[in-house]
Amino acid sequence: MERYAIGVDIGGTNTDIGIVTSTGECLSRSRIPTQQFSIIDDYVDALSNGIKVLVEQYQPCEVSGVGIGAPNAHFYTGTIDNAPNLPFKGKIFLKKMLEERLSMPVVVTNDANAAAYGELVFGGGRGMSDFIMLTLGTGVGSGIVSGGKVVYGHDGFAGELGHVITFPGGRLCTCGRHGCLEEYASARGIIKNLWELAAQGNYSSPLLEMDKSAVDCIMISNAAAQGDSLAKAVVERTGFVLGLALANAVAVTSPEAIFLMGGPARLHGLLPEIRKSFENHLLTSYKGKVEVRFSELDANNAAIVGAAAMVLAEECK
Amino acid sequence: MERYAIGVDIGGTNTDIGIVTSTGECLSRSRIPTQQFSIIDDYVDALSNGIKVLVEQYQPCEVSGVGIGAPNAHFYTGTIDNAPNLPFKGKIFLKKMLEERLSMPVVVTNDANAAAYGELVFGGGRGMSDFIMLTLGTGVGSGIVSGGKVVYGHDGFAGELGHVITFPGGRLCTCGRHGCLEEYASARGIIKNLWELAAQGNYSSPLLEMDKSAVDCIMISNAAAQGDSLAKAVVERTGFVLGLALANAVAVTSPEAIFLMGGPARLHGLLPEIRKSFENHLLTSYKGKVEVRFSELDANNAAIVGAAAMVLAEECK
Repeated sequence: MERYAIGVDIGGTNTDIGIVTSTGECLSRSRIPTQQFSIIDDYVDALSNGIKVLVEQYQPCEVSGVGIGAPNAHFYTGTIDNAPNLPFKGKIFLKKMLEERLSMPVVVTNDANAAAYGELVFGGGRGMSDFIMLTLGTGVGSGIVSGGKVVYGHDGFAGELGHVITFPGGRLCTCGRHGCLEEYASARGIIKNLWELAAQGNYSSPLLEMDKSAVDCIMISNAAAQGDSLAKAVVERTGFVLGLALANAVAVTSPEAIFLMGGPARLHGLLPEIRKSFENHLLTSYKGKVEVRFSELDANNAAIVGAAAMVLAEECK
Repeated sequence: MERYAIGVDIGGTNTDIGIVTSTGECLSRSRIPTQQFSIIDDYVDALSNGIKVLVEQYQPCEVSGVGIGAPNAHFYTGTIDNAPNLPFKGKIFLKKMLEERLSMPVVVTNDANAAAYGELVFGGGRGMSDFIMLTLGTGVGSGIVSGGKVVYGHDGFAGELGHVITFPGGRLCTCGRHGCLEEYASARGIIKNLWELAAQGNYSSPLLEMDKSAVDCIMISNAAAQGDSLAKAVVERTGFVLGLALANAVAVTSPEAIFLMGGPARLHGLLPEIRKSFENHLLTSYKGKVEVRFSELDANNAAIVGAAAMVLAEECK
């Protein structure tokens, strides 16, 4: 009988639930509105019911367990700790609460680690022992695979490449420190690159005619695709910073490849700029040995499939 | 019968060989002058003979194998690749050559990884799954332990923290890039900190009265111990840079502790300065969770014991 797993992607707005085959196919999915729940017990009841409905739909197939990717989620404790974008405050014992409601094991990790599991089990990381998954979005997250295992570190919070201080004394980050990668390569970091470059150079660009608060990464990408010099400079600057930060990460864990995921990673022309800066910044002994490429997971289901992969991966059996 | 291992520390000047017990005691050691050999076969013959003499001395005890720490040594291939400080050029198939001469397994790794093995098996890292070993000397080396294993990465060259670009556009490094940690925290980096601070400030210090080429880290340490303001500023600056670089490394692998080894690490007053900068630069979620302390290995035998630990460690049986 085929083995399935449930993958759950908890976001601030919605929670997506999917049932995933052992080959990484998401057969069916459902959604519950995270933001409509203020009481955690009600939310976990709804999540548990959503999972049960999917499991029953595919009876008599065997469902091995539930993998959950969530912001500020902790693999070792199975908790979500003070996630700023979720309506539930404090420490949520999600694994325990859900296992009490379901007769199957539950594994919890943060979004970027779940993405790394997805890449390892179903994506471009198949057959690789060492790679880095970088997720670009509202923030910059990462999951690090070393020796075929996702690195959790002592406290379960390894892989915070978004908060490596890339430029000491640089931009103030939401974490309270200065110069973190996230301030240059997340969606908001890229917008900051735009306004910084616009202030420094003498650009004439349609982006400068717009309502400042309306400009987003898609507009920058479209403008870059149309040859806009300011947008192209933003792409170049973003690629320079990402290439530098990724070259530094290589000197720590020496991966075979780096996978990029998330909307901002798809900025028009960004990948070649990252690769150029990356090779320039690599220590000689690593040059030409480390691929930087896009995630091979289907972006629509990547978070669900990655979360399910935690359960389906050999190590989590 | 007690299990012993041979530990070998290959340096540019000398090669030290020791026989090490399963509790990490170095019972006996010998030395061959690396720099007097220009032909690799002659060197490996001498090394092999030195090992045989030690093994015979402790007959009938069982010797499990030979662990070797060497510059530019490669764990996966058992080779030494273009080590600039050794008289043998190109790629040396050391593991293969030595196994042909000895009837026991040989394991080869770089110096800092050997030190990490030593700390893991016999030092402060006993019982820890995740830590970083930082070795300060002519260069800055590191060995990273994650999930109880030394991280080698895809190409066997993981753990080059000395060549993480800490200050983009900073000092020119011997690797040809700019701003590597090594240029601020190795022995030569610390001397550079001295002259940079001396040029920036209005210091009156006995260090400035000396022949510039004669000033070394021991003199700086002694001057700092005597309250010399320039020497103290050098210690503070060095601690600042190390604290920043180590805080960045924590965001990658999330260790429980960081161990420091090597002469420059013992600079008078350096450890408190590192700890201050480290805590200041840590991401909030790691603050107060990661110890920075000195290696617990005996400095006289650390390299030999570390190399032997590779053989004695469970994973290398």
